[in-house]
Amino acid sequence: MKKKSYDVLTIGNAIVDVLAEASDGFLDKRGLIKGAMRLVDEDEADALYAAMGPGIEVSGGSAANTAAGVAALGGDAAFIGRVRDDELGEVFIHDIRAQGVSFESACSNDGPLTARCLVLMTPDAQRTLNTYLGASVTLAENDVDPDLIAAAKVTYLEGYLWDAPRGPAIFRRAADVAKGAGREVAMTLSDPFCVDRHRAAFNDFIASSVDILFANEDEVKSLYEVAGFDEAADRAANDVRVAVLTRSEKGSVVCRGGDRHQISARPVKLVDTTGAGDLYASGFLYGYTHGASLERAGHMGSICAAEIISHVGARPRADLKALIAEQLG
Amino acid sequence: MKKKSYDVLTIGNAIVDVLAEASDGFLDKRGLIKGAMRLVDEDEADALYAAMGPGIEVSGGSAANTAAGVAALGGDAAFIGRVRDDELGEVFIHDIRAQGVSFESACSNDGPLTARCLVLMTPDAQRTLNTYLGASVTLAENDVDPDLIAAAKVTYLEGYLWDAPRGPAIFRRAADVAKGAGREVAMTLSDPFCVDRHRAAFNDFIASSVDILFANEDEVKSLYEVAGFDEAADRAANDVRVAVLTRSEKGSVVCRGGDRHQISARPVKLVDTTGAGDLYASGFLYGYTHGASLERAGHMGSICAAEIISHVGARPRADLKALIAEQLG
Repeated sequence: MKKKSYDVLTIGNAIVDVLAEASDGFLDKRGLIKGAMRLVDEDEADALYAAMGPGIEVSGGSAANTAAGVAALGGDAAFIGRVRDDELGEVFIHDIRAQGVSFESACSNDGPLTARCLVLMTPDAQRTLNTYLGASVTLAENDVDPDLIAAAKVTYLEGYLWDAPRGPAIFRRAADVAKGAGREVAMTLSDPFCVDRHRAAFNDFIASSVDILFANEDEVKSLYEVAGFDEAADRAANDVRVAVLTRSEKGSVVCRGGDRHQISARPVKLVDTTGAGDLYASGFLYGYTHGASLERAGHMGSICAAEIISHVGARPRADLKALIAEQLG
Repeated sequence: MKKKSYDVLTIGNAIVDVLAEASDGFLDKRGLIKGAMRLVDEDEADALYAAMGPGIEVSGGSAANTAAGVAALGGDAAFIGRVRDDELGEVFIHDIRAQGVSFESACSNDGPLTARCLVLMTPDAQRTLNTYLGASVTLAENDVDPDLIAAAKVTYLEGYLWDAPRGPAIFRRAADVAKGAGREVAMTLSDPFCVDRHRAAFNDFIASSVDILFANEDEVKSLYEVAGFDEAADRAANDVRVAVLTRSEKGSVVCRGGDRHQISARPVKLVDTTGAGDLYASGFLYGYTHGASLERAGHMGSICAAEIISHVGARPRADLKALIAEQLG
């Protein structure tokens, strides 16, 4: 599956999602903040899993979902991340390759197990994530293959990866290689709490190294510590060449310099919001790397996000290419 | 979760399902017979998995699904089966207990891995099963706890388990203990090819030991090697006290002596037929062990089957109790 060139290379935590239904009371009792991603250690993951309802296991991981979406659209996608040589690791590798994504990162054969994210799905279609990072955080800068980065039009980094011990070094190396090869760097802020943990470092990295920034409204406001969306958008547009800001049912805004392209959200029966941002990025980056205007790329993101929230799980099911052809022509 | 008495104890293969979409061409190319269950060895399972699309992992196993359905209805259910102490084994144990089923069978800690069933879902909502039995076939007659059987109103055996080396001995022991304790034995024929493999033994066991027989039309015709459904139904009604025969969209027939209760199928948007028979058995057995008439028990089975085929996966999602209250009062 290794190719000579890629539209998009993504780097992030390699995670298997364990999805289960939960009540609001279940979240409240455990002090879990709805809609957020929380890091848990192995013991806490085990205790939460024991208390959770029956689950469904689906390969996940934010940047991995984005790569899967790009491949589903017919793009050439690659992913860098770490699993262990255990059963869930095998599941992860199978699924990402079966989706057509190139994945050649070495497995670890000792140490922590493959990462898992316990996803609690409440009746309002919100999801609350509890991530045991396991093997995924043993990824290091020497796993970032410079040839792969040089072969990809865009290298996309997930903010979550900054939590890994070698996360900051991975980001820096990826950005250095991409710049040296004349390639672009994209980054997602991932989660408002992730922004809280790393605000200063994110600000530095974004201003110095990011070409395309993806964030939702809460994340970008948290990044710049401002109350208004418009102000946050202006700050982002000043820091990066293209800022892609998503606002749930209010749609999204693609900013370049002084331009603001308003993209409406697609109407959809909301089932599970998991992966909405990941797949928006797939659609946008597929369009962006195939010569679409920023506005059209935004609509492609919006269509992919609508597909993913119409069913459980963060990997696409419908034919995304056909959906885009149908809706955008 | 261990209780003093149970409505239903089920015994069968403990399996994690790996569900993936597949085209008719994918099946044809591999000579797979749509709708059937085929046993595969580890190498074949690996090769098929490598060729399959991205998957979703959900706990399964026919008799285990039936126990999960009884628990979902509010009944007291227990399951006997074998997993290994691996990650998929953990998933199986978590899911069945989280559904409220008592499961205390010992894990194996060496030998084959936890069983998996590669489920190919074609666009017509049919599923083609490829089962690697792994650890599940190391179940033996000394795993059949006589106290548990004596504590259960009905012990339900899946025909698939006859493929295990100790399967026939497990069936005989379960039946002997149940008879000795004045309890009833139910059995499902599982699959027409399973009937083919074990026809003579099934005929003997059913005539001598089964009180309630579950089968679909193809299975019961295969059992008696007759072409007509009515003739097969008469033969079954002669062999067992109650024969519960399902006919897909034609509904089902519950036979006792000369009585034939015709049960209509519930209208439903068919998504995935996996588990239809398993959940029909849940509904029927829940009703049967709670004093419902055979006709009402049949309708309960029909409602549960309709729920399970309206979504992917063979464990219930909707509130089955509420569905029955709504539709039957």
